[in-house]
Amino acid sequence: MSPDEGSVAGTGEFALIRRITGGRTQPASTLLGPGDDAAVLAAPDGRVVATTDVLVHGVHFRLDWSSPEQVGRKAVAVNLSDVAAMGAKPSSVLVGVACPPDTPASVVAEIMDGMWAEASRAGVGVSGGDLVSADQLVLSVTALGDLEDRDPVTRGGARPGDVLAVAGRLGWAAAGLAVLGRGFRSPVSVVNAQRCPEPPYEAGPQAARAGATAMMDVSDGLLADLAHIADASEVGIDVHTGSLEISTRLQEVATALGADPLRWVLTGGEDHALVATFRSFDELPEGWRKIGMVTMPGSGVTVDGKEYGHAGGWEHWQQ
Amino acid sequence: MSPDEGSVAGTGEFALIRRITGGRTQPASTLLGPGDDAAVLAAPDGRVVATTDVLVHGVHFRLDWSSPEQVGRKAVAVNLSDVAAMGAKPSSVLVGVACPPDTPASVVAEIMDGMWAEASRAGVGVSGGDLVSADQLVLSVTALGDLEDRDPVTRGGARPGDVLAVAGRLGWAAAGLAVLGRGFRSPVSVVNAQRCPEPPYEAGPQAARAGATAMMDVSDGLLADLAHIADASEVGIDVHTGSLEISTRLQEVATALGADPLRWVLTGGEDHALVATFRSFDELPEGWRKIGMVTMPGSGVTVDGKEYGHAGGWEHWQQ
Repeated sequence: MSPDEGSVAGTGEFALIRRITGGRTQPASTLLGPGDDAAVLAAPDGRVVATTDVLVHGVHFRLDWSSPEQVGRKAVAVNLSDVAAMGAKPSSVLVGVACPPDTPASVVAEIMDGMWAEASRAGVGVSGGDLVSADQLVLSVTALGDLEDRDPVTRGGARPGDVLAVAGRLGWAAAGLAVLGRGFRSPVSVVNAQRCPEPPYEAGPQAARAGATAMMDVSDGLLADLAHIADASEVGIDVHTGSLEISTRLQEVATALGADPLRWVLTGGEDHALVATFRSFDELPEGWRKIGMVTMPGSGVTVDGKEYGHAGGWEHWQQ
Repeated sequence: MSPDEGSVAGTGEFALIRRITGGRTQPASTLLGPGDDAAVLAAPDGRVVATTDVLVHGVHFRLDWSSPEQVGRKAVAVNLSDVAAMGAKPSSVLVGVACPPDTPASVVAEIMDGMWAEASRAGVGVSGGDLVSADQLVLSVTALGDLEDRDPVTRGGARPGDVLAVAGRLGWAAAGLAVLGRGFRSPVSVVNAQRCPEPPYEAGPQAARAGATAMMDVSDGLLADLAHIADASEVGIDVHTGSLEISTRLQEVATALGADPLRWVLTGGEDHALVATFRSFDELPEGWRKIGMVTMPGSGVTVDGKEYGHAGGWEHWQQ
């Protein structure tokens, strides 16, 4: 049985690699791009920030909910967001695509288009990759970044009295997930937020330049991720709900679904906003919004001074 | 239904990550290891070599043929080999593990042990990773390296008159595959060569220091991979069979199976030997063996001056 002409198997590995790598323009940071045993990338700082994430069809994305292009964007975005969260400027991404042999070659090409689009949004290129056969579509992405002569901003530097601030959106992807989960496809703005985050890459280096004491990206949910900063920094963190902007659009969607928009903002993941702590309010760069304070150790992460779990009935594994 | 206690799902993501990252000693090149949004690695050259490969259960390895530890070693080895093939010194690896929830946690722990063992053999550590759920075991590895102020050795620098040389083994993994394919498990030396390659990592930087003009690692088979050097360098390459060492062990196995050991050496992949070209025989570093010459463009890759396909009936996709 010969494979379908339009499939990955029918197109052939080398022809498909030519199709997905041809015509791409590498940025200056890619000193040697795809085609040899390995890529060579600029690392002017003398250190390189590196992170890797694996995304699995049916677990991290669904091709009946998202276009291949959105899936590619998301896979790159979640990795570049981790680079930005160290205060680093993205320098390149490398990608692995494992897919069933009968996957349409056009799907792989569109995923790569999305990966390139998101890489370009961060000013970098896809400098290397691997394309292999598997039973299920699996995407692996490694993102690299440059610290530009600054120390990395870890999760461990927050001190009591620091100001807690956020850049980027909170709760939008959770609202989109709720909409998709009910079988709807609109409003498009929240649905697209779930399909593909738009991390504020430049806010990471901006925060580092401004002296951020701790930083991370919000992938699991604001409160869950703040717990990592609280643990690593050995501090408490209090979120002030009065400072949290809940947009009219989120409120409308929540009303339509009978949901609590504050819960989406506090516990929804996948928007890949950046949260950071600063020594003072005056240090906040443009685009960063104060949402709370770093407190003394012992109280964990609180919302308006109280445990959110008790006050709001929050359960981590329930919607 | 609660998951089996010994499974990945029963152990839980965070507990398993603690188990597989705990007690590891990072080398000096890991400036910040696992536990934050991203790792920070030394890149003293100001450039970083980067490569990524994805290995899929049933495609690139089989847990009924190899132990989890061997699978982990192999996944890291094939990537570090690509770094060495650029003439770079390995600096770190990042890994992704996607596995079914009912995978025994011990299997993941042993794969990580193998990854760490192979990384350590190259003097580096596992500085980051991701652990996710999937239907099939998929391993992704990204390897990074440092050029130590040398130019990368690409596939494109060979010139007519250069000496062709190899470091490491050829044909052993193919012999092991033939043995395993017949249902045997010995001789262990060739079977283990298939289960896990032993790339000569140090031979890469050695060749670069000695002025190698082109280099790559042999993953698909000597003749197939030399074709990449011939294409990229726009030269011909002639392999001299009289210079190829065929060990007694390979000859014994070939005799037992009624196979041609020369074919294994010329066309067998997965040993991850390094092949390189040098300006003269006198430049060959210790451990490198002359196996042919770079010739004028137009003749492609030949064996003793003839096309091997015609002379020996070699077909790329047949054993």
